[in-house]
Amino acid sequence: MNQQKLFGQIQKKRSFLCVGLDTDILKIPAHLLESPDPVFSFNREIIDATAQYTVAYKPNIAFYESLGWQGWQSLEKTVDYIRKNHPEIFLIADAKRGDIGNTSGLYARAFFEKLDFDAVTVAPYMGEDSVKPFMAYPERWVILLALTSNKGASDFQFLKDEASGDCLFEKVLKISREWGSAENMMYVVGATKAEKLKEIRRIVPDHFLLVPGVGAQGGSLQEVARNGMNQKCGLLVNSSRGIIYASSDTGFADKAGEAAHEVQREMELLLREKGLI
Amino acid sequence: MNQQKLFGQIQKKRSFLCVGLDTDILKIPAHLLESPDPVFSFNREIIDATAQYTVAYKPNIAFYESLGWQGWQSLEKTVDYIRKNHPEIFLIADAKRGDIGNTSGLYARAFFEKLDFDAVTVAPYMGEDSVKPFMAYPERWVILLALTSNKGASDFQFLKDEASGDCLFEKVLKISREWGSAENMMYVVGATKAEKLKEIRRIVPDHFLLVPGVGAQGGSLQEVARNGMNQKCGLLVNSSRGIIYASSDTGFADKAGEAAHEVQREMELLLREKGLI
Repeated sequence: MNQQKLFGQIQKKRSFLCVGLDTDILKIPAHLLESPDPVFSFNREIIDATAQYTVAYKPNIAFYESLGWQGWQSLEKTVDYIRKNHPEIFLIADAKRGDIGNTSGLYARAFFEKLDFDAVTVAPYMGEDSVKPFMAYPERWVILLALTSNKGASDFQFLKDEASGDCLFEKVLKISREWGSAENMMYVVGATKAEKLKEIRRIVPDHFLLVPGVGAQGGSLQEVARNGMNQKCGLLVNSSRGIIYASSDTGFADKAGEAAHEVQREMELLLREKGLI
Repeated sequence: MNQQKLFGQIQKKRSFLCVGLDTDILKIPAHLLESPDPVFSFNREIIDATAQYTVAYKPNIAFYESLGWQGWQSLEKTVDYIRKNHPEIFLIADAKRGDIGNTSGLYARAFFEKLDFDAVTVAPYMGEDSVKPFMAYPERWVILLALTSNKGASDFQFLKDEASGDCLFEKVLKISREWGSAENMMYVVGATKAEKLKEIRRIVPDHFLLVPGVGAQGGSLQEVARNGMNQKCGLLVNSSRGIIYASSDTGFADKAGEAAHEVQREMELLLREKGLI
């Protein structure tokens, strides 16, 4: 999917919501545990209940991997289900991969060929050749970690480069923006650092930003929109637990739909405020 | 496995060789493609031919992931086979994972519970809470990326911290050594930077270093041993392609065994030189 199509979906759905499919077998409603593939059954119901309010889904690969090959099977079924039933969705593998060139090429094969994802989150530590193989696929995206929302972000991401005075996350933005374009690269920017968004927007004015951490991790949607939105929206804001675990009983999917709808309504106001719809 | 047991294995086998199971379906000898699980069949023969010369195996997870859930099944069978038939082996998942705390916890569950690995390679970018969950398992290890051997290593790993004058990879070493000990943390150090090994040894004198890049990636084993060995050896030196693809015909396993034996003999001399056997 290219940037224009993604922006078109945002305008059509009046939403820049990404729903994180962090599906934990320990948190799935009890009645689903009897189905042959509880993780997939849960995802399917969540997807059908929320797809009209969301432009993107983001399975967190760790949750599937923790179940071994059966988890990977649930992941493949989830991707196939979305592709078949909701083909307009932007599909993100939250995998945080990154390795030497030929190995990153295999991760790209895993997520773009074996599975039909639009984008993969990638860690920048190993530099250009660890990122580039993901960008060799037309209309597929790298979403590079820049500034994350967790406590450990401060361990290295704010280290100040002697030569330029930039922090590491700023160097990551400035160096990596040369590797591709706003058509194949996005950045992960933690919403708990909303005050940093303005600064990041100055460095990458045209790129989409994937913002985790609104909701459970404490960011404010208004603040993110105010500081991070550009003329093509330029934001995908993720919510996981607040939506998919809105309820744990048999009506869980309806409750997830309501929770997603609530976020969508707030996003619609923000898109109108900016004059994008 | 604790450090003493690992050193015991090194002394017993007179080797600090790690064989990288970077098993590529496109490079497997043709006659194996007819077996029900060619990747596992290949691994099993390689393992049986090389186990007497090696203390560790390191499946590169990307190779398995690129085959989808079937690849994960081959990986599980490989791990089970090693555990059952060569229980003395130190088993490394070369996965380069790393995410916020609860997600890293799930990756740890994937590699330490669902699969019975001794160690996982982890990327440091997201800091302490992305690394610690892997260290909560007794006698299991994090192998943290410090200085990698690829070209892109120079993009960020040599960025110089204004406050301390340290490069990023040195900061990673100095900060992360406080998170655990030489009993649950190792570091990835690229062998093509062998001149840096002395410096790294000053920062982490007691930790094991996992050194990729000897052989195909151009490092010299003698130089690595001279600069990196400590009183418990403190080195695992990896070779992948040079051993597992030593030949592509029906005699591939014997050839792999010979290639591993050759490296082992060289390592034996280096261990003697250091007075460790």
